[in-house]
Amino acid sequence: MAEAKTLQSYISGKWQSGAERGSALVNPTDGSTVAYASSKGLDLKSALHYSRRVGGAELRKIGYAQRAALLGKIADALAAKRERWYEISRINSGNTKADTGIDVDGSIGTLKYFAKIGAALGDANSLADGAPARLARDANFQGVHIGVPLSGVAVHINAFNFPGWGLWEKAAVSLLSGVPVFAKPATSTCWLAQEMIAAVVDANILPDGSISLLCGSPNDLLDHLQMGDAVAFTGSADTGQQIKQSAGVREHGVRVNIEADSLNAALLGPDVADGSASMNYFVREVVREMTLKAGQKCTAIRRVLVPAEREKATTEAIAAALSQVKVGNPENAEVGMGPVVNAAQRKSVEEGIRTLSKQARVAYQASDFKLVDADAQAGAFVSPTLLQAQDSSDGSIVNELEVFGPVATVVPYKSKEEAFAIARRGGGSLAASVFSEDSAYLAEAAIALGNSHGRVLLVDPSIGDSHTGHGIVLPSLLHGGPGRAGGGEELGGLHGMWFYHQRVAVQGSGPTLAAIVGRAVELPKA
Amino acid sequence: MAEAKTLQSYISGKWQSGAERGSALVNPTDGSTVAYASSKGLDLKSALHYSRRVGGAELRKIGYAQRAALLGKIADALAAKRERWYEISRINSGNTKADTGIDVDGSIGTLKYFAKIGAALGDANSLADGAPARLARDANFQGVHIGVPLSGVAVHINAFNFPGWGLWEKAAVSLLSGVPVFAKPATSTCWLAQEMIAAVVDANILPDGSISLLCGSPNDLLDHLQMGDAVAFTGSADTGQQIKQSAGVREHGVRVNIEADSLNAALLGPDVADGSASMNYFVREVVREMTLKAGQKCTAIRRVLVPAEREKATTEAIAAALSQVKVGNPENAEVGMGPVVNAAQRKSVEEGIRTLSKQARVAYQASDFKLVDADAQAGAFVSPTLLQAQDSSDGSIVNELEVFGPVATVVPYKSKEEAFAIARRGGGSLAASVFSEDSAYLAEAAIALGNSHGRVLLVDPSIGDSHTGHGIVLPSLLHGGPGRAGGGEELGGLHGMWFYHQRVAVQGSGPTLAAIVGRAVELPKA
Repeated sequence: MAEAKTLQSYISGKWQSGAERGSALVNPTDGSTVAYASSKGLDLKSALHYSRRVGGAELRKIGYAQRAALLGKIADALAAKRERWYEISRINSGNTKADTGIDVDGSIGTLKYFAKIGAALGDANSLADGAPARLARDANFQGVHIGVPLSGVAVHINAFNFPGWGLWEKAAVSLLSGVPVFAKPATSTCWLAQEMIAAVVDANILPDGSISLLCGSPNDLLDHLQMGDAVAFTGSADTGQQIKQSAGVREHGVRVNIEADSLNAALLGPDVADGSASMNYFVREVVREMTLKAGQKCTAIRRVLVPAEREKATTEAIAAALSQVKVGNPENAEVGMGPVVNAAQRKSVEEGIRTLSKQARVAYQASDFKLVDADAQAGAFVSPTLLQAQDSSDGSIVNELEVFGPVATVVPYKSKEEAFAIARRGGGSLAASVFSEDSAYLAEAAIALGNSHGRVLLVDPSIGDSHTGHGIVLPSLLHGGPGRAGGGEELGGLHGMWFYHQRVAVQGSGPTLAAIVGRAVELPKA
Repeated sequence: MAEAKTLQSYISGKWQSGAERGSALVNPTDGSTVAYASSKGLDLKSALHYSRRVGGAELRKIGYAQRAALLGKIADALAAKRERWYEISRINSGNTKADTGIDVDGSIGTLKYFAKIGAALGDANSLADGAPARLARDANFQGVHIGVPLSGVAVHINAFNFPGWGLWEKAAVSLLSGVPVFAKPATSTCWLAQEMIAAVVDANILPDGSISLLCGSPNDLLDHLQMGDAVAFTGSADTGQQIKQSAGVREHGVRVNIEADSLNAALLGPDVADGSASMNYFVREVVREMTLKAGQKCTAIRRVLVPAEREKATTEAIAAALSQVKVGNPENAEVGMGPVVNAAQRKSVEEGIRTLSKQARVAYQASDFKLVDADAQAGAFVSPTLLQAQDSSDGSIVNELEVFGPVATVVPYKSKEEAFAIARRGGGSLAASVFSEDSAYLAEAAIALGNSHGRVLLVDPSIGDSHTGHGIVLPSLLHGGPGRAGGGEELGGLHGMWFYHQRVAVQGSGPTLAAIVGRAVELPKA
């Protein structure tokens, strides 16, 4: 490989270099440095202003359907270089092919989804929310709600685990809405985002200023936010809080959407028998969630809730399946799980396991850790680790400490009410899944878990093989969860566009409102 | 009058007294003390827990329509004691009859509105948002969004200016949603809220625990919030920021809705001729907004945007009308404007006028301030004051300093684009109004102002007499604005219920989702 280069940022309509070599991006399989990123000295105030002034104006010269068509072109440009994205994901994220599929094919699929449903919105540049309705005795005095695209720039701060999908799932909705994107990927894996944006810039798809990319530290980025800007963040709850408290956000009331990782639970229903199809579906899903992306998904299962009388059998079944997973170099097709993203993350996971162990016993961990085509010293490898909790009360570690790696904890419950209560002790989560053959129980679980989760997956045997998975985010469904998970609402089909629009009540005479609504479009129901 | 008593709080299902006499509530017309409020020593952690555990469970034993019926009963109970509310409003808020009408009749009207539209929601206890739709190749694997009422308590922190309406417009939506209310009115005018809640408690309308009231300081209230709680706040932008940064809110990701006062603008269209009907409607509305509630409305007009060539005539017309307004004791039927809420507020308004005067000249202020039936020394009276700005650029005082009293500033503009730009310099506002006879211009203004405002009123002569007013909040329309105005969304008909529901994506088999959606109700369009 050639000497690692420093990645440029794309701001104010051109590629720009930071004033130093910058932070190293590594290959987590062997620890080698693959690139650098630096934003030192870049004029971010001007860059944001350029996005608003040039990008915003250009994007809103055309309507929703035309912008949707641009998303389709981005998807095509990305699809044409799919092999390159797989290569970068393997080198910079340690991703297996299955891991990369979620990130890269998820990017392309999400863009295509919004290209398709956005096409139905026509030439409009504002949303209608209902028809004008009378407001007073005089029938001619009416009111209606419309959505007007934000006047500012959408700052998208993404997590290291999905450098592709995190970028495009946010950008798709923002661009469709007519709001320019200013993307700040996590530095450790920003290479993929950088080359993807370069491909889109080279293909000359988007109007000038409508997409920007910052590689490296955000520096003073948030200080220059204004009313009309928006921030969408995916990452840790702590960083989410920092963003909400930053001066630019507070002083200008900038809207913020947070998607924070959470203590997601998978719940085995009280009715499920050992050895049943549902039990097998449950065990398979837990193992998939623990090992896919080496457990580095915000939505991954962290807590495995099982009836106390089934704890032993379930734990043994999960442990047995985990022992079959080959860990090592993702380039080797036999490997089922690659490394975590870097040495710091490995250390964090190892420390997390030690902390969990204070209140849980380790039920599975590879005692003789044989890596495939990889060196345990150089790479950031962690064994899949299953724990079994002794305590699941309020304030116990298993409900509070998220270990962001291939780690989950089995938690026994004594009644269905207790199971729902334990799930809630995560303090608000992105996703829960429930496995049962009892449809009434599944419906009850949806309501019981519904106000502490953003998504609930109910698996009965009829969809055991066809459901898309506990941790997989679909563009047509809400992504986000309450409380600790940040309280955000991303995606959810066209609903996600409201984050990039101001909902405004308009009052006036019938003819005036008819003219306004006539130029707007009502979002179709999903 | 009898000696002023200390108002009790209604928490944990009973009336409780603070451990001291507490803060004085005054009559702003003569400065006398009318009551005290103290929350010292009250166990707010237990009180919140009682709301969640008892109130939440009780409220959700019944469905939307039954809760809507309770709102109707509250409206009836309040209507039966209307004279008493007018008396308290006059004594504790210095309100004229017109002022009280917005607060008290606004309360009753809003409750009746939600009683009526909530009745259509039937027995359901969850919301459906669209129909189940296929998610994968297998048509049986589907997804749908539902809304589940929050599991916690709704803390409503209200402003001093609408002790009645502020309480009930929030409580109506929260109770209808099935979420118990914990009301914290502003101490200075909490007497009305306290007696209103006592009337509702005495009438035994609501299930135990579903409404609580805290009179006095909030003390450690926010420290005990949990995931599933919600805070709705109306008041200053500064206090709103403090609430968002409080530990309980931050650490548990508690959702917060902020309605902050703002620099609302009224805009005279470029087409409006001197002496025209539109000009008269405009002048009348500015004067009404300046003097109603002595200018103490979050939505009141603060900036009067007029074409430069019409500045002189408009200013003179507004000044002439202001000179006709009689200021004094609200008990006197001749009085058009009462005092501001207390001496501290009077001082704040006087200081604000001095600050505005640095960049604006005083165009009207009563030089010989003759009060009707009142003593200028004892009462909190301020003359209606109109200023004329010399500078309206970014960062100038007129766009940044809200003087919360009978004060507005005329700002000249040179082009319609400049007028829209000046309106935006308020940094996000609750309401704007535009007066014009040109329907195309009004439609353009709705879009141009739409993303920096929560509500835009477009007045052409056909509704000059029938529109409900720049500053009047209607239950069917969104109340809230972006940026400085807090980014909140209250009311807006049934849309407001989403703040009290968690929107959750549910995935499952067709039959399971059909069962869930079958028990939910889709919100009808306004």
